Parts: sequence; C-alpha cells; structure tokens
Amino acid sequence: MGLPTEYSVFKGSQEGKVVKAVSKGKTELAPNDVAMRITHSGVCGTDLHHIHKDMVLGHEGIGVVEAVGNKVTKFKPGDRVGFGYIRDGCGTCKHCKAGNLWYCTVAPRHYATQDFDQGSFASYAVWPDTNLHKIPDNIDSAEAAPFMCAGMTVFVPMRNLGVKAGDRVGIIGVGGVGHLAIAFAAKLDAEVVVFSSSDEKRSDAEKLGASEFYVTNDLASKGPEKKLDYLLWTATSLPDWPTFFNLMGPRSHIVLIGLQTDDVVLPFQPLMGKEITVHGSLFSTPDELEDTLAFASQHDIHPIIEKFPMNEAGVGQAIGRIASGKVRYRGVLVA
Amino acid sequence: MGLPTEYSVFKGSQEGKVVKAVSKGKTELAPNDVAMRITHSGVCGTDLHHIHKDMVLGHEGIGVVEAVGNKVTKFKPGDRVGFGYIRDGCGTCKHCKAGNLWYCTVAPRHYATQDFDQGSFASYAVWPDTNLHKIPDNIDSAEAAPFMCAGMTVFVPMRNLGVKAGDRVGIIGVGGVGHLAIAFAAKLDAEVVVFSSSDEKRSDAEKLGASEFYVTNDLASKGPEKKLDYLLWTATSLPDWPTFFNLMGPRSHIVLIGLQTDDVVLPFQPLMGKEITVHGSLFSTPDELEDTLAFASQHDIHPIIEKFPMNEAGVGQAIGRIASGKVRYRGVLVA
Repeated sequence: MGLPTEYSVFKGSQEGKVVKAVSKGKTELAPNDVAMRITHSGVCGTDLHHIHKDMVLGHEGIGVVEAVGNKVTKFKPGDRVGFGYIRDGCGTCKHCKAGNLWYCTVAPRHYATQDFDQGSFASYAVWPDTNLHKIPDNIDSAEAAPFMCAGMTVFVPMRNLGVKAGDRVGIIGVGGVGHLAIAFAAKLDAEVVVFSSSDEKRSDAEKLGASEFYVTNDLASKGPEKKLDYLLWTATSLPDWPTFFNLMGPRSHIVLIGLQTDDVVLPFQPLMGKEITVHGSLFSTPDELEDTLAFASQHDIHPIIEKFPMNEAGVGQAIGRIASGKVRYRGVLVA
Repeated sequence: MGLPTEYSVFKGSQEGKVVKAVSKGKTELAPNDVAMRITHSGVCGTDLHHIHKDMVLGHEGIGVVEAVGNKVTKFKPGDRVGFGYIRDGCGTCKHCKAGNLWYCTVAPRHYATQDFDQGSFASYAVWPDTNLHKIPDNIDSAEAAPFMCAGMTVFVPMRNLGVKAGDRVGIIGVGGVGHLAIAFAAKLDAEVVVFSSSDEKRSDAEKLGASEFYVTNDLASKGPEKKLDYLLWTATSLPDWPTFFNLMGPRSHIVLIGLQTDDVVLPFQPLMGKEITVHGSLFSTPDELEDTLAFASQHDIHPIIEKFPMNEAGVGQAIGRIASGKVRYRGVLVA
C-alpha cells in the first residue's frame, strides 16, 4: 500500500476553534516509522490547552498500520496500534535508557512540543515504533483510545506505588481520568473511595467499582470513617487540602494527575506527622503504557465513552462537551 | 545492682525554663524493660518545642545498662545502648507489625506524648527494649547521641529512596540535622550540594563532605549547574520553593525533615512537569535506627558536637545555644 500524498488533520487555531486542514504526506518512511490510518482518537482536557495553537491536536490515537519503515519488526500492516502523548527520544541518554522519554534532552518528541504536523485528530499519522503499542484483541478500538493517556496516568502510579487488595484508594473527580481511576483501582482490588462535587455521578461511580462515594462539600459532616492509603487527584481544580489531609492515613500517598495553574498549598503538620508523600505524576515509559493495556485487557476494563464523528463538527462538539463538563466520561472521535 | 529509689531529671516548665527535678525510681521492671544510667544526651530543636511542658526532656539518649526485665535477651548490664523519639507500641497492630511504632493506635509510647517521666535529660531511665539499640564499639558515646534522632532522620529516607553513588543530593540548612545529612550523603557516595543562608559554614560543610556550597540568597545569580536528584530540607524555616524547584531534575525527590508551622506552597507546573515527589519524613522503624548506627559505624561518621555538663546550668546553656542558632552543630549533654 503506498503512502498517501495528503490527509486530513484537525488543528487548533488562533481563535481557539478547531479547523480542518490538509497535511502533506511523507514520501518515504524513516527506518523506525510506522504509517497508520487513524480510526479513533480520545479527546483529553489537555487538548483544550493547545486549542489556540497551529498544531494537529489529539494524543490518544488508535489506528491500523498501513506501512512500516525498514527497521520496524514489532508491527506489520493490518495491526491495530495505539499511541499517546510521548512519541520518541534519542534512545541513548540516561533518561531514554530508563524509558523516561519525556525527559530526553537530546531529541525529545512529544505532543504539543514537537511534531506539530502529527496527531490523532487526523485521518492518518506517521509515528515512530518506540512508544507505539499493539491493541489487545479483546479491547475495542474506541474503548482503547482513552487508555493511551487517561488510563495510563491512573494505572501506572497505582501499580508502581504498590496499590494492593484491601488498600483504600481515594479518587477526587469523576471525569475522563477519574472514572478510569475508579475502574483500575477496583480491578487492583482496592477499596475505592470516590469524592465528587455533587451526587450526580454516584451511580456511575458505583458501577465502575466505587465502594464509597462522598460529596466533597459535605465532607465536614459526612466523610469516610477509615483513613485512606492513597488519594488520586484527577479534577480540574485543586481541593481543600487540609480537609483531605485529615482523611489520609499514616505514610499514605497523594498522587496529583492533571493540569491547572494554582500553587499546591499543603498543611505542614499532617504532611510531617503522618509522613505523607505527594507525587506529581503524568508520564510513563513505553513498558508502563504496554502494561496498562495488558492490565485493561486481562481485567476487562471498559471506559465509559461518548462517540463523535472524526470531522470538523464532531471534533467541535466533543471539545464543547469537555469544556462544559458534560461529557460522560471520555469523548472518542470515530473515523 | 538494685534499682535506684530516685534520680535526677531535667524538665520543661510553664515559664519555658529547664528545671531540675527528682523522679521516683521504679521498684520493679516490666518484662521487657531495660534500666540504664544515662551518660549522654543530644539536644534537639524539638526539645525546645516542649520546653513549656512539665515533662522530662531529651530523646537522643545514650546510657549503660544496669538491669533488665525477665524477658529481655538482647541486652545485659554493662552494655552501651541508645534510644530516640519512639519508645514502643502494642506490637500487634498492622503499624507495629510493619515496624511503624509511631503510628500505633493501640498502645503508643513516644517522646512528648506518653511516658512524661522518662527522657534523656536525666541521670537514669527505664526503657522498653523494643527500640533500644546497642552502640557499636567504634562509636564514642557522645558522638552516638546525635545519631539516635538527627542521624536517623537523614539517613533513613536517603537509604530508602535509593540514593546511590553519583546521585546529586541537595541539602538545605547546616545545623544539627543538616550537618549529619552532609556526612551521611557523602558516605553514600553522592555529590553533596549544600545550601546555607550565609558563607559562614562553607568550610565545615566541605570538611563533612560537601562538593558544592551555595548561599541561598545568591541562588538567582549563582546556583548549581547540574540538576538535583534529591533535596533534603533540614532548616527551621521553609525556603522559596520556586527557586529550589528550578534546581530539581526529572522525577526527583524533595524530603522535608524538620518542624515549623507554615504551609508548604509548591509551584504546580514544575511539580507536575518534572514529576517531583515531596515527602514528609520524620520517623523510622527500630530496624532502620539500627541500620543508621551500623552505617555510621561502618563508614566512620562523626557528628560535630559541643559538649555541656548534664546539670541545670549545662542544659540551659545548650538550649540557649540552639535557640540562638549558635551551636556547632549538635549540643550533647555529658553526665
């Protein structure tokens, strides 16, 4: 199959409106490039942060391989593959050797920082094989998309910090990221304790695996009795930390996942007296992303998604649903 | 040797003055009690926090065993032993089983919380064997005292977080805790990068093993070129976090060791973008305290101390030197 001479992409623009554009196709592939027809893309809150930039949006891509460079051995035409935020690195610096491509200082390639002509809001993409992943057979392509960023951001820290059966895992926020945090934590056999700004999402949270659900503003009068071992912040604004520190157990972990701009103001006494650890956490190694897919496959985890067509109207609608907080819980564009 | 019917202790008082008092001796030992004549005690900044309380002060005690309860097998009369902040726990709750006696909710026994009639500013003490430790032969008793609290608080997090040869370890503050952080970090073969409020302690820091030394207020114009993998805060007031976050490398660790009351205000962007982890850290298990002594013994670590006599005048003088920031670097009371 030949490489396309051009393909559709959806970009940000100065006015903050998603616009359709045409990217010129590559005439030949680099040795570790994989060319794919994009079939699905998740829509992440982070995409909204870049909507004023002249760049192809989207970093939860699922596609079908059409051609591979001459050094690619892991993939072949016809394979279903997925990619996320981080594309590649130099491969030889100390960060790349440890798998932390995000921190490559030699030749980093990430969403919204380099390779502005490639993204998952597109009909086609050419991607290095470094951080590209086969989608397990039992995961539907539309449902796979949210695992490539949102799913990874919640599973990897929980797995790496050793969340195990019976641990109490609090989750602040039931959105694109938070709803997957509930699902993954439940499959890690944790007691999942959810905090949301209203009672509206209680039923969904329970279906996803929550064992307790609290309305954040009611915590002064009605909160969990047993202390938390972990707390994942997945909301779009920071919580009242003294309230949540009060809920934490000894040597517990607070994992911050998400983006906003306010300072994190932590109360000193419980931070020290309970020896709490606070983690900034966003990225993963390629192996950790692979592990996320394997865990989701093994434990039959399903995101709750809303589908939109991969066209200008569909992208705009998906972005609008996210911006207004209405999407339940991850928008996925379908080609 | 019989148990003494009474012994001298030095207590806090409502007026904030250390006063000599007499404690009534125990007539018999509990099965796991160890009775010792105190020979030395470190003086810690934390002791100042309790100087208004009617309690025996001191939690860096070194003594010589005089008698043991009938279930004590690890110690015998004549042994040199040391104790720190944490005395005992129930032994059976999940925290005690993990060695985290500090978090015992059943029968906790800690400095300044229980057992107000026992402390290391005293001529004698009766202590459970749970968190009592033999002092290695090559460690002088006066120099052993600061390891029981200050030394443990710096060695344990560095060891547990995996500080290894070549890692860059920043240390904020050259005081009782900070000077030992330099010494332990150097013996972990780290590159030790010290931050102090003035140039005054540069020479001491270098003797202790610092490879770089910076004056905190000059950091805008003159700071380290290479990023830090770890940063230990050991000062008495919090630093300007944005300045220090700028010095941190990817996936680095900030360890807070010490006590003050201000909120910890962390800049969100570098916390997330570099995935920095911030640890509240104060306590150790008995095994970790034992490891601290073993490491200090093996690597011939010597605190820099000022000696004061264990009497009302000496205790008052030591406390005064700490309160005014003049002590170099740990006061030790000598009986």
